[in-house]
Amino acid sequence: VIRREGERIFDYEDPQGFEPLRRSIAQVLCSQGLGATANRILVTSGSQQAISLVARLLLREGDTVLVEEPSYGAALRLFRAEGLRIVGVPVDRDGMRVEEMEPLLQRHRPGLLYCTPNFQNPTGTCLSAPRRLRLVELAVRYNLPVLEDDYVGDLRYDGRALPCLKALDRSGAVIYVSTFSKMLMPGLRIGFILADGPVLALLTDRKRTTDLSSASLPQRVLCAYLSVGRYRRHLRRCRALYRGRRDAMAAGIRRWFPAGTSFAVPAGGLFLWARLPGGLRCRDIARGAAEAGVAFRPGRESFVGEAGGDRWMRLNFAANDVPVIEEGMRRLGLCVRAARRAAA
Amino acid sequence: VIRREGERIFDYEDPQGFEPLRRSIAQVLCSQGLGATANRILVTSGSQQAISLVARLLLREGDTVLVEEPSYGAALRLFRAEGLRIVGVPVDRDGMRVEEMEPLLQRHRPGLLYCTPNFQNPTGTCLSAPRRLRLVELAVRYNLPVLEDDYVGDLRYDGRALPCLKALDRSGAVIYVSTFSKMLMPGLRIGFILADGPVLALLTDRKRTTDLSSASLPQRVLCAYLSVGRYRRHLRRCRALYRGRRDAMAAGIRRWFPAGTSFAVPAGGLFLWARLPGGLRCRDIARGAAEAGVAFRPGRESFVGEAGGDRWMRLNFAANDVPVIEEGMRRLGLCVRAARRAAA
Repeated sequence: VIRREGERIFDYEDPQGFEPLRRSIAQVLCSQGLGATANRILVTSGSQQAISLVARLLLREGDTVLVEEPSYGAALRLFRAEGLRIVGVPVDRDGMRVEEMEPLLQRHRPGLLYCTPNFQNPTGTCLSAPRRLRLVELAVRYNLPVLEDDYVGDLRYDGRALPCLKALDRSGAVIYVSTFSKMLMPGLRIGFILADGPVLALLTDRKRTTDLSSASLPQRVLCAYLSVGRYRRHLRRCRALYRGRRDAMAAGIRRWFPAGTSFAVPAGGLFLWARLPGGLRCRDIARGAAEAGVAFRPGRESFVGEAGGDRWMRLNFAANDVPVIEEGMRRLGLCVRAARRAAA
Repeated sequence: VIRREGERIFDYEDPQGFEPLRRSIAQVLCSQGLGATANRILVTSGSQQAISLVARLLLREGDTVLVEEPSYGAALRLFRAEGLRIVGVPVDRDGMRVEEMEPLLQRHRPGLLYCTPNFQNPTGTCLSAPRRLRLVELAVRYNLPVLEDDYVGDLRYDGRALPCLKALDRSGAVIYVSTFSKMLMPGLRIGFILADGPVLALLTDRKRTTDLSSASLPQRVLCAYLSVGRYRRHLRRCRALYRGRRDAMAAGIRRWFPAGTSFAVPAGGLFLWARLPGGLRCRDIARGAAEAGVAFRPGRESFVGEAGGDRWMRLNFAANDVPVIEEGMRRLGLCVRAARRAAA
């Protein structure tokens, strides 16, 4: 790309993002059933900047944001840093309990719902089809902007894909965000927003005042790589690889962790969400795990309040290969057993 | 860098910035008389993100920010987007009129002063040494955080460098921001903040919640390039080049613009700030200039209010080579003459 494009790569880029890249992203989205065009896409520095731009556009200090509970820790930290009130909607095995939303909408009048319908972060659950429909209805009825974070929507290992909220929405209430950090590489720092009308224009203005534009070179590099066919092939390889890693992690937990540890095998995504046995908390095993060289995210980071959250751990199965996962689960299982004995 | 560092370049980077790059930046700053260490530096996506992070950390909607008037248009747009009250301090040939600040401080109690002491954007003036000392005194006395934007401090063509505000400040009131966009290339999107103590830690937290980290590859590439010796050599080449372009632009204006056009030749930086003759405004020549293929920044973008600002134009002399500048000044001069005739 450097050889071909020369000095242009060193200049400012279009604040909305390199136009051919936006076209490629739109094609990938269309191939996944999500109507999209280049002019409805804003390229961002990862999905974190996308979430930040949307939150700052739609909410002011003291406003309320509705989130799944548990939710993505970095989004919660962002909302706290912006001085927002955060209200959680519980998650069960079918994703967010949409049927509990209406009283919360009436009581808290939130300015935004932030949610990850596919392979929810951290629980790995998927929002069921009826709940998706109900959620979009509620958004329209209550004039509630919805920020749909589809960070790993296409990393599905079992079952069939469900339509995105954005694909179900005719009103423009849903703002769709995704990223190439998970599917390709986080160091690119390329995410994007798909939104409609004045919201997209206002977000582009914000992007400009925030950092003028994202770097040109990574956008041109990604654009040179990204075609529907190539993305699909890459996705196929990733799915096969990550499915095996997921299964290795599930087997490792069953083998090495004490009875009473509970988890569900997620149908996609990157994370396995496991509950420690017998009242143990992540705090109780943090030192042992660090000494054993095993890293995980403590569940408390994913909760609005802290009560009980630390009995859960988020384990990333995508980032290591099978032998490392097997050894990691063995070591972590021993830590948990040791912590249980110490507590007994 | 890709070959040498392998897949690490594709991972998340330290939110504070690639540590060896921060060390190189600190060395460059030290060579310019500004005491700096790697742990006091935060790498940002250009200086625009740096300004945005500082404004959002220190100010809330409705708070007051003090700026030079005229000032950098993109910073003014950012402050407006954040809902800030903007109060201007006039600029004369010795930079901001610091002696007029005290009543403004008492009356408006600003939460921040944003200023560009070297080759002020857009006027090209430098803040005089006595005013620098007085400004730092005032900042300490009034507990006023100062955001010093030194975007082209080292692009000096005549005279001797003056110490940065940050170098004069013992209190930590001054937050220093600069960028590699002007000296090297904007497409890198690498700027940085030099700040002290808790302010730097809070800014790093903000950076993390805003976009997790800046991309790794451009940071590692810049780091591989950046050494004190190499930066100095590059600076010497740029200075010689840009000095010639500045002089060509000044000669072109003298030759082609009608009498009554006024400007001062700046001692450094990128811009020449020229006043149109006889009440003409940028609006009056905008269409003609566009048709002639000549671009400039209308002065109104640099003013807090609009009154009178549009009689000024900001001309960039660094971005084109001498023949292009000569032809551009010829065409623009003809536009101005035509507009004058039309107005007469």
